[in-house]
Amino acid sequence: MSHRFITELQEGDTLKQFFLLRRVEQRLTKGGKPYLDVELADRSGAIKGKVWEEALQKCPGPLAPCDFVAVTGSVEPYQGTPQLTLDFIDTVERLKAKGRPLKDFDPDLLISVTPHDRTRMWAELLELVQSHLRAPLRDLVLALLHKYQTQFIEWPGAQSYHHAYAGGLLEHTWSVARHAVHSLAIYPGLNGDLVLAGAILHDLGKIKELTGPPCAQRTVPGELLGHIVLGWEMIREEARVMNFPDEPLLRSLEHIIIAHHGTMEFGSPVIPRTPEALLVYYLDEIDSKLHMAQGHLESDGSEGDFTSYHRVLGRRLYRPPLPADPPENSPSDNS
Amino acid sequence: MSHRFITELQEGDTLKQFFLLRRVEQRLTKGGKPYLDVELADRSGAIKGKVWEEALQKCPGPLAPCDFVAVTGSVEPYQGTPQLTLDFIDTVERLKAKGRPLKDFDPDLLISVTPHDRTRMWAELLELVQSHLRAPLRDLVLALLHKYQTQFIEWPGAQSYHHAYAGGLLEHTWSVARHAVHSLAIYPGLNGDLVLAGAILHDLGKIKELTGPPCAQRTVPGELLGHIVLGWEMIREEARVMNFPDEPLLRSLEHIIIAHHGTMEFGSPVIPRTPEALLVYYLDEIDSKLHMAQGHLESDGSEGDFTSYHRVLGRRLYRPPLPADPPENSPSDNS
Amino acid sequence: MSHRFITELQEGDTLKQFFLLRRVEQRLTKGGKPYLDVELADRSGAIKGKVWEEALQKCPGPLAPCDFVAVTGSVEPYQGTPQLTLDFIDTVERLKAKGRPLKDFDPDLLISVTPHDRTRMWAELLELVQSHLRAPLRDLVLALLHKYQTQFIEWPGAQSYHHAYAGGLLEHTWSVARHAVHSLAIYPGLNGDLVLAGAILHDLGKIKELTGPPCAQRTVPGELLGHIVLGWEMIREEARVMNFPDEPLLRSLEHIIIAHHGTMEFGSPVIPRTPEALLVYYLDEIDSKLHMAQGHLESDGSEGDFTSYHRVLGRRLYRPPLPADPPENSPSDNS
Amino acid sequence: MSHRFITELQEGDTLKQFFLLRRVEQRLTKGGKPYLDVELADRSGAIKGKVWEEALQKCPGPLAPCDFVAVTGSVEPYQGTPQLTLDFIDTVERLKAKGRPLKDFDPDLLISVTPHDRTRMWAELLELVQSHLRAPLRDLVLALLHKYQTQFIEWPGAQSYHHAYAGGLLEHTWSVARHAVHSLAIYPGLNGDLVLAGAILHDLGKIKELTGPPCAQRTVPGELLGHIVLGWEMIREEARVMNFPDEPLLRSLEHIIIAHHGTMEFGSPVIPRTPEALLVYYLDEIDSKLHMAQGHLESDGSEGDFTSYHRVLGRRLYRPPLPADPPENSPSDNS
Amino acid sequence: MSHRFITELQEGDTLKQFFLLRRVEQRLTKGGKPYLDVELADRSGAIKGKVWEEALQKCPGPLAPCDFVAVTGSVEPYQGTPQLTLDFIDTVERLKAKGRPLKDFDPDLLISVTPHDRTRMWAELLELVQSHLRAPLRDLVLALLHKYQTQFIEWPGAQSYHHAYAGGLLEHTWSVARHAVHSLAIYPGLNGDLVLAGAILHDLGKIKELTGPPCAQRTVPGELLGHIVLGWEMIREEARVMNFPDEPLLRSLEHIIIAHHGTMEFGSPVIPRTPEALLVYYLDEIDSKLHMAQGHLESDGSEGDFTSYHRVLGRRLYRPPLPADPPENSPSDNS
Amino acid sequence: MSHRFITELQEGDTLKQFFLLRRVEQRLTKGGKPYLDVELADRSGAIKGKVWEEALQKCPGPLAPCDFVAVTGSVEPYQGTPQLTLDFIDTVERLKAKGRPLKDFDPDLLISVTPHDRTRMWAELLELVQSHLRAPLRDLVLALLHKYQTQFIEWPGAQSYHHAYAGGLLEHTWSVARHAVHSLAIYPGLNGDLVLAGAILHDLGKIKELTGPPCAQRTVPGELLGHIVLGWEMIREEARVMNFPDEPLLRSLEHIIIAHHGTMEFGSPVIPRTPEALLVYYLDEIDSKLHMAQGHLESDGSEGDFTSYHRVLGRRLYRPPLPADPPENSPSDNS
Repeated sequence: MSHRFITELQEGDTLKQFFLLRRVEQRLTKGGKPYLDVELADRSGAIKGKVWEEALQKCPGPLAPCDFVAVTGSVEPYQGTPQLTLDFIDTVERLKAKGRPLKDFDPDLLISVTPHDRTRMWAELLELVQSHLRAPLRDLVLALLHKYQTQFIEWPGAQSYHHAYAGGLLEHTWSVARHAVHSLAIYPGLNGDLVLAGAILHDLGKIKELTGPPCAQRTVPGELLGHIVLGWEMIREEARVMNFPDEPLLRSLEHIIIAHHGTMEFGSPVIPRTPEALLVYYLDEIDSKLHMAQGHLESDGSEGDFTSYHRVLGRRLYRPPLPADPPENSPSDNS
Repeated sequence: MSHRFITELQEGDTLKQFFLLRRVEQRLTKGGKPYLDVELADRSGAIKGKVWEEALQKCPGPLAPCDFVAVTGSVEPYQGTPQLTLDFIDTVERLKAKGRPLKDFDPDLLISVTPHDRTRMWAELLELVQSHLRAPLRDLVLALLHKYQTQFIEWPGAQSYHHAYAGGLLEHTWSVARHAVHSLAIYPGLNGDLVLAGAILHDLGKIKELTGPPCAQRTVPGELLGHIVLGWEMIREEARVMNFPDEPLLRSLEHIIIAHHGTMEFGSPVIPRTPEALLVYYLDEIDSKLHMAQGHLESDGSEGDFTSYHRVLGRRLYRPPLPADPPENSPSDNS
Repeated sequence: MSHRFITELQEGDTLKQFFLLRRVEQRLTKGGKPYLDVELADRSGAIKGKVWEEALQKCPGPLAPCDFVAVTGSVEPYQGTPQLTLDFIDTVERLKAKGRPLKDFDPDLLISVTPHDRTRMWAELLELVQSHLRAPLRDLVLALLHKYQTQFIEWPGAQSYHHAYAGGLLEHTWSVARHAVHSLAIYPGLNGDLVLAGAILHDLGKIKELTGPPCAQRTVPGELLGHIVLGWEMIREEARVMNFPDEPLLRSLEHIIIAHHGTMEFGSPVIPRTPEALLVYYLDEIDSKLHMAQGHLESDGSEGDFTSYHRVLGRRLYRPPLPADPPENSPSDNS
Repeated sequence: MSHRFITELQEGDTLKQFFLLRRVEQRLTKGGKPYLDVELADRSGAIKGKVWEEALQKCPGPLAPCDFVAVTGSVEPYQGTPQLTLDFIDTVERLKAKGRPLKDFDPDLLISVTPHDRTRMWAELLELVQSHLRAPLRDLVLALLHKYQTQFIEWPGAQSYHHAYAGGLLEHTWSVARHAVHSLAIYPGLNGDLVLAGAILHDLGKIKELTGPPCAQRTVPGELLGHIVLGWEMIREEARVMNFPDEPLLRSLEHIIIAHHGTMEFGSPVIPRTPEALLVYYLDEIDSKLHMAQGHLESDGSEGDFTSYHRVLGRRLYRPPLPADPPENSPSDNS
Repeated sequence: MSHRFITELQEGDTLKQFFLLRRVEQRLTKGGKPYLDVELADRSGAIKGKVWEEALQKCPGPLAPCDFVAVTGSVEPYQGTPQLTLDFIDTVERLKAKGRPLKDFDPDLLISVTPHDRTRMWAELLELVQSHLRAPLRDLVLALLHKYQTQFIEWPGAQSYHHAYAGGLLEHTWSVARHAVHSLAIYPGLNGDLVLAGAILHDLGKIKELTGPPCAQRTVPGELLGHIVLGWEMIREEARVMNFPDEPLLRSLEHIIIAHHGTMEFGSPVIPRTPEALLVYYLDEIDSKLHMAQGHLESDGSEGDFTSYHRVLGRRLYRPPLPADPPENSPSDNS
Repeated sequence: MSHRFITELQEGDTLKQFFLLRRVEQRLTKGGKPYLDVELADRSGAIKGKVWEEALQKCPGPLAPCDFVAVTGSVEPYQGTPQLTLDFIDTVERLKAKGRPLKDFDPDLLISVTPHDRTRMWAELLELVQSHLRAPLRDLVLALLHKYQTQFIEWPGAQSYHHAYAGGLLEHTWSVARHAVHSLAIYPGLNGDLVLAGAILHDLGKIKELTGPPCAQRTVPGELLGHIVLGWEMIREEARVMNFPDEPLLRSLEHIIIAHHGTMEFGSPVIPRTPEALLVYYLDEIDSKLHMAQGHLESDGSEGDFTSYHRVLGRRLYRPPLPADPPENSPSDNS
């Protein structure tokens, strides 16, 4: 039975398939019997569910957030929204260990990912390094991209709010780096190598700050030190290994990483002290804020001229009643 | 006698030429005699001077800041810096009224101007409108550019700190608008017409906020209302005149103007509520901050790894000891 | 059957009358059947209600917030509070279109209004203009009051928190203007014309920022530009029409409007630069804050020495156990 | 020889009269000889002076700020401003002790004072208490006014910035109290006794925070505790002495004193929790801010549409070119 | 029947015992019948309960928060947590008045208290005064400790967040005072008498700001004036009574009390102006913040490396997986 | 000729000795001749001086801040303060290279140093590590102390404001570490190893942020990255070298270093997340603030009850007129 996406489930459906377990809490019924309250997710969205006592007794082991699970059950209405009542739940890992057949299990169906083609973004990023960066920064950037290639392609860009899905780190980096090349055409007086290397490496530390898919969570070093410091160390280490030949250039790059949050109150221990660091800070800011704003405009379900309030942006956004289908020849085509 | 630029004056020189009078104050010597303490400027810089009692008595009328003046005098050392002692000073206006010959009087030598070619920038701006903007915003933008063409080309971009010279408004607008076209290549989901029109018109109100050359000073409406509000009114008026056909589109453009300082504490009565307004805010910010930073790096006379403190940026900037002559093929060439 | 006010409804009552529909949301029962969750209001307050499937099917068209509706139904307890169960609901507009008799429909019973007599306040405001304002500001103020008379009398003073009811704009303006006349007795060095004209016109832009009764909601221009800018334009336009003869006086008045929020972080693009603008700012502040505080003290249902927390004032207010019936001759009688 | 006011002194004048010594510093000439650099004041203003070695040797004792001094000397130009060169200086106190005749010594000529008639203000304040305040607050206010009558009439309202002269405390209190009576006509729902008593007593603690004339300086308790706390204690003490009969009323009054700076960051340990405390806070704010603004407009010597920058107000003020002589019948006449 | 602690109750238990009534609200069932929703507490924790109509009718009088009550009832599951259903409830006070036997009523079982031995803390505090404080501050401190001994031992340290239980004021003071003695060993240049007296008396005003056990609530003076001002007055009064002989020393102590919140925005009307006041501010801060942090680490029920979010500390805390049983000889043993 | 300290120089003295050159600027006389304006320092203080043209011509090479120099010259009065007129100046380095005898050259006389005995502080710090720290943190701390022993003993604690002299880093660390041991006696629930190791290592990065004596200046890495990040890397590196065995313990220590500025706006990229990090933050704060306050009270030359304004502390400090010679048995003796 092929996977049915959560957004397409209807009341009355029965199903037998896989999900990602996002949240799981043990509770008691009014009658004092234990049951589980769970949240299940796939690439399309999330749905709540219950595992009542009988099904719970058949579950052979503990369940934890971020487990892939196999379930059987049915879709039932609950307080006006559909919800799953589960007859069976177990982890993919345990089933695998028991030698159960897991055909149709495809994690890619369960994990939310960037809407962009990761292979293409990765190729474009490398191409951009090759054509616009010069040694020795090119060598440093390539060494780091190759060393962390797997994570760079898989990792989310943030725990929530923007690029919070697999491939988000790559998408954000790809976007900021391409913007950087464009900005350098306007500001030729800047050191392009520094701007571009800074744009590509600024969020490298996210790889250590966050766990990768299926669930982006902050690691202990992420909470205690933050991605700015962690990313800086990754670059320092690689520069030491490759015996980076230009100390002032390296210091300027390190400074971009350390200063890329722009102000101390947003977590940079020093503020940008070079035009290059200023530009990378702004390009990062633009990409994350526009991503949040555009994402909210697309996903917000409210009606009217304005969206619902976005907690991080601190505002409701305007949806102008513009023609749905703009003419072909839009300005961005010609740039 | 052709104009000698202030930066080239040497102690002992005598001169007879024109300057812009930047500051003038009446004072008393210890002996109780009146004299003038003045600051004179030309395109290259500024120098202080004194008009002692004798010369003062020959001056036939009042002097005010921003007057063009003719002077004769000599360069003398004063507390370690050269200064002018003036034998004669009068305004160009009065001399003209008296029919005196004013050959060699060339205001262009006296007023500091953008280092970029204004004719070329203006042409590029119009070309950019033609190729990237669509009606009806194209019509509105063109109408305003033509209506205010003279001022747009002459005006400074700010009273001080950045683009504070003739042509500064054009230079800043040209730079932000070109950057906008580039950014739209990265963010194709945005309404390019709005971003571009907003980028071009965001500082239009400066024309009413500031006096034009030779001296940028804040006008009374500029102090009491500010350029955000003044520029918005200029756009509203033109839209009324041309009977702008698309109300929501116009409102979105007006919003970009009103919101382009990004936050209320920096003087926008509302904060950006569209992705387009967010982007214009950031592009304006990037251009002014990079202009300040690069200008300070170039002009700051201090020695060492860091510049002197820049009051508006709130920091000293880093001057990395990078090779003076970078290789030809820099990244910004290829974008 | 005459209107029964919401505050007087009791469980078990059946009713057939009109309300203002404040909120309407489509939901599903646990059994998957659609129903409406609504909030109905009249001048005295608000009550929640349900329209179950059967009644819903009889409703011949869509319902939207701010519609006047006719309903039949009964009052039932729900989680400890009375609620309406509706057998029938339709809009007054559709019923009118169908030629149904609408006797007893009286919007004035349904819309919450200022507790003060609007006719009297309007007359007093005009009287105050006549006796205290001199030309040309008197002419400008009168022209604007007459041009916007209808809205001025109907509009709320704010979307919520203070004067958020029909006639609120008039009540607030009347109060601030009268206070201004009194303050001028203490500060005779101020330009009384400016203070008084500023006091009367400071919130004029609310007429474009908010929709009028029955429901005060922010308009698109209100959200995107704000009432400060909108009100300033209304005054500019009228001054142009009447060819206002005194430019500096007009600029000073415009400045009061633009600066009346007192600081940039509260949305004034410039801060008050004249004593007159400072005073209008403070008088506006006093009226809104005292209105909020006194309103909260009256309406707050909690017991004890302090009210519940007021979110906008950011505090709980003190209710001193003062004698309920103070002596006749209170200080305010003699002023 | 009668007193010559400082503002009328001219270069070349010789004089023999009394001043208030504002500042005195011992210095060395380039030749290593001691001299005094002093600042002398009278009611009209201040002037700098020098006491060279010879005159200094004749001075029989120490000099300290706030001493009244007798001097002889002449007015001479110094770096473009007139300055005094003193042949003789000694304190009035020592001269009196030596039995020297001190005819023409009149401290009232030397101390800057309120421009208003203090006898009249005091009478009006008492009259206002009698006619608008009721027992028991009237009794408390009268007791305090009588207890501190001398200081209340002599004291400055602040160390600098506003009402910083003899009688300033009275002038400020008189102004705020009269405004309070007017405001109560607009807000009859407030407890007028509390507002008026609070308005009169809010700055009582200044009497302990500052030294009185001739020089307002902060006392040690003023620096270490502040006038809010000191004034509150003065009221508490008097209430105890007179056995104030109404505890909640007293608490409400105490609260007005403690909260009258409006916010914690401006030094009130609690924020206003009653409408009465809010109003007194605003009336105090209005009086001090308008006093600063009007004073700056009057005294600022700069030319042009705007004054010089006022450090406390944080702005330059606008001087509209309004007709110098407004028509008789101004709005404030009729209130 | 002896007291069963709330943390030990199990579903199905029936009980007849005493509790502290923390909260009581009258509500209506869906059928329109009145019932009470209550929260009951003892030393170990709190539990919710219901008093249905029948039991309610038997309750002979009103119930209020902070009443001690006698109840009978049973423990039942409600939405997954145990709750009490009460057959009977009445106040201890009324039962006492009726002469009912109240054996087993022991308020100490019902009120949450400091985990430290109050007798020992009090003795240590007095011992510390005797051995480290010198006259005259020792006399003042002892007089105040004895005057307020009962409250000092009973009072909470704050209304919530830290030391919010009986004996909390003593525990906090004891801790800060002992820390002060230790800190003085590091900073011998400070006036030890002032530091120690300030440490002991800094929160004295809590006795008037809060009601004592069983429920810490803010009093009217506490809300309107705050504990800083109230405590200062208590010290002033005692110093007057004992005719404190050293004015500057007393002023310095008063200053420590007034300034102990460290900054104006946290409620000190003046900021610390002596090293002694700075140190007391920091020691108070350390004790309250560490108490909150350690308390949250102990009580927080969440799992994982980090606790749940602490609203006042504004962060989640880290729980390192350190060995549960550290070696004997820990560093703190040797200090 | 032995060194004469600057604080003891008198007008008319001639001298031939060594100084530290703090500042050197090339200037022109009014006659256009070059001269040097210099600031010279020794351990006792600083003095300004001039090198006129004649002496300048004899100086064989460039002079730079932080050079040790040999001079001959005389003390002369200048604008009321003594100043040096130098006949000869050259660097110690050049003289040494030329083989000139440099007897009497003793850098220790020229560099300002901690008033405490560095050998004793170092010994006490090591003793404290031995007796209070347990492996493995003891091993890590000892390895770092030994690795950086030379710098740790020589370095300043800050560039200015507090501990800005040779040995300042050691003095500050010694003080904070000793305080930590004392604080742990009050808070035994904390992990003492972490607190103590954090207290000792928190400012380790100053060794890379600042140049050592004779002049503390910020290095390029210090400006671009800051001491928090630099110190963290030094610890990480040593932990890697010694293969630190306890990862969570190491993370907790690293966190203390990264978080020790307490808030993000003061430069910590993350805020303290453990009680141990909170305590180290406060102890660092106490030591630097008390050092500034006590230093200002000692060195401030103003008279009266309050010092002059301290720019970093943002206040004037109180000097109570307490008895100069307190009794023997002060509280701090007994702790």
